[in-house]
Amino acid sequence: MKTIDVSKAVYSFKPAMQAVETAKPGEEITFITADCWNGQICREDQLITDVDFSILNPATGPLYVEGAEPGDTLKVSILDFVLADHGVINIIPGHGTLGNRFTEPTTRILPIVDSKIEFLGLSLPVKPMIGVIGVATTLEDGEISTGTPWKHGGNMDTKDICAGAAIFLPVSQTGAMLAIGDVHALMGDGEVCVTGCEIGARVTVKVDLIKGIHMTWPMLETNTHLMIITSGETLDKAAETASAETVDCLSQHLGISWHEAYMLTSLVVDLKVSQCVDPMKTIRAAIPKNVISINQIFPTRRYV
Amino acid sequence: MKTIDVSKAVYSFKPAMQAVETAKPGEEITFITADCWNGQICREDQLITDVDFSILNPATGPLYVEGAEPGDTLKVSILDFVLADHGVINIIPGHGTLGNRFTEPTTRILPIVDSKIEFLGLSLPVKPMIGVIGVATTLEDGEISTGTPWKHGGNMDTKDICAGAAIFLPVSQTGAMLAIGDVHALMGDGEVCVTGCEIGARVTVKVDLIKGIHMTWPMLETNTHLMIITSGETLDKAAETASAETVDCLSQHLGISWHEAYMLTSLVVDLKVSQCVDPMKTIRAAIPKNVISINQIFPTRRYV
Repeated sequence: MKTIDVSKAVYSFKPAMQAVETAKPGEEITFITADCWNGQICREDQLITDVDFSILNPATGPLYVEGAEPGDTLKVSILDFVLADHGVINIIPGHGTLGNRFTEPTTRILPIVDSKIEFLGLSLPVKPMIGVIGVATTLEDGEISTGTPWKHGGNMDTKDICAGAAIFLPVSQTGAMLAIGDVHALMGDGEVCVTGCEIGARVTVKVDLIKGIHMTWPMLETNTHLMIITSGETLDKAAETASAETVDCLSQHLGISWHEAYMLTSLVVDLKVSQCVDPMKTIRAAIPKNVISINQIFPTRRYV
Repeated sequence: MKTIDVSKAVYSFKPAMQAVETAKPGEEITFITADCWNGQICREDQLITDVDFSILNPATGPLYVEGAEPGDTLKVSILDFVLADHGVINIIPGHGTLGNRFTEPTTRILPIVDSKIEFLGLSLPVKPMIGVIGVATTLEDGEISTGTPWKHGGNMDTKDICAGAAIFLPVSQTGAMLAIGDVHALMGDGEVCVTGCEIGARVTVKVDLIKGIHMTWPMLETNTHLMIITSGETLDKAAETASAETVDCLSQHLGISWHEAYMLTSLVVDLKVSQCVDPMKTIRAAIPKNVISINQIFPTRRYV
């Protein structure tokens, strides 16, 4: 299987990206990812001021997917994680929901034993997830740091982007240009202190290509839900966008009126906080799959 | 069993409230509740302008709980719902996350057959929940409409306030003064269009009293989680308050530092949107019960 090394990393998604590997639709690829600190923090007594903040959130890639053109959708099925034997969590003054309430940064190294994180005497089962996953951006959106989420994906910090799920990303440039990084061994919705259990990993995915259909924002398919992942300057703005995208999606694909779709959304769709600590905040709208199926949005016949 | 009739309703929570019934700790009581429209909407072609907006969100009660004093906590275990045979859902220009995107109000009557809501050809299983539940407020907070959530409870519109759960409300006045209303047969997190399946109901609860312990905001216990329910002018502000209350709670009751509790919160606590459409927005912080138990916060010995 093709493997993309941790040394092949980008720090922004932009319209023009230089591929480091290529894949055909249907192919499986392993991305070796560094943690959000790019491996710079390995001791609890390390000064956060010694960290080079210009190389945070590395995303391994980009991968050129053959045949992908603007207007298509890249489906990335997340197959498997292999985690490093420890992660790290940090609190940093000025960051997170409570960043203005303390002055001393703190780092904890989190050993992982038998797929459990040992912390404060607790033994917390890991639930690995991808923090950063995205593709080349539109000319209009331009260059976006890997620390920021937007329509191309990026730092969505959404814990449902885990093994067994598939994410559908809008292709804006030839080859799509997929990059992946910032794995968390564990994180709660909100990522309130600005870090989860940050960890290096090997992430294996399968890429598929859907021709001529394109959503504005990423969509995630889990066992039970379809989730539209939107971001905005505030949670409230992200919630508005998530609502609007959901109503439009249900109206279009279920053949119901906008008014009916707005009511249906209020009844059955959950707005969920992904993270509220990055430069843009992220909300995902979770639509139960018994209301709409993924094939109604991305029909099987459109796959290559 | 004591029953409080739908005619005994309040439209605000305030420091001085006149009880309509009394109960002892340990007693079960049935509250008969009107829907959020106070039953004023019974046809789909009814004009929303004909509705008397001064009598919305009636809360049945208040119930005087014997022995309850400021500084105590009222535990309300939610035992059972009996729903009316239909509900109603409405969209209203200016309301909900997308209130500025349409001009025509719309009403749908939602028949309920075999515990399922018939809507748009879908058959949606009911999941009854309480929208409004609260107690008399502090002098500082003063009078608060039943349409608004705050520290006393109120219009929290939190779908986990359902059968099998228990809510812990801070007592601010003698007798606590519990009132309940605004049942929804079904609602998604966010309540994006400003209404769920609004419905009249019979709600049976059990009240218990915990002496001399008092949280600032309501706490909910479900099968799996403890949830601190906070509100603010924006989702972001509510998320900050939910984070702060959670970190303080974990630090105090687990005997860990504030810094450690902030990291633990980021790892295991989910910030969840309850609603983003009322005068104050509501976020609940869901703490897994394998991290902290309800007895660590409200010890059994404190119950009367």
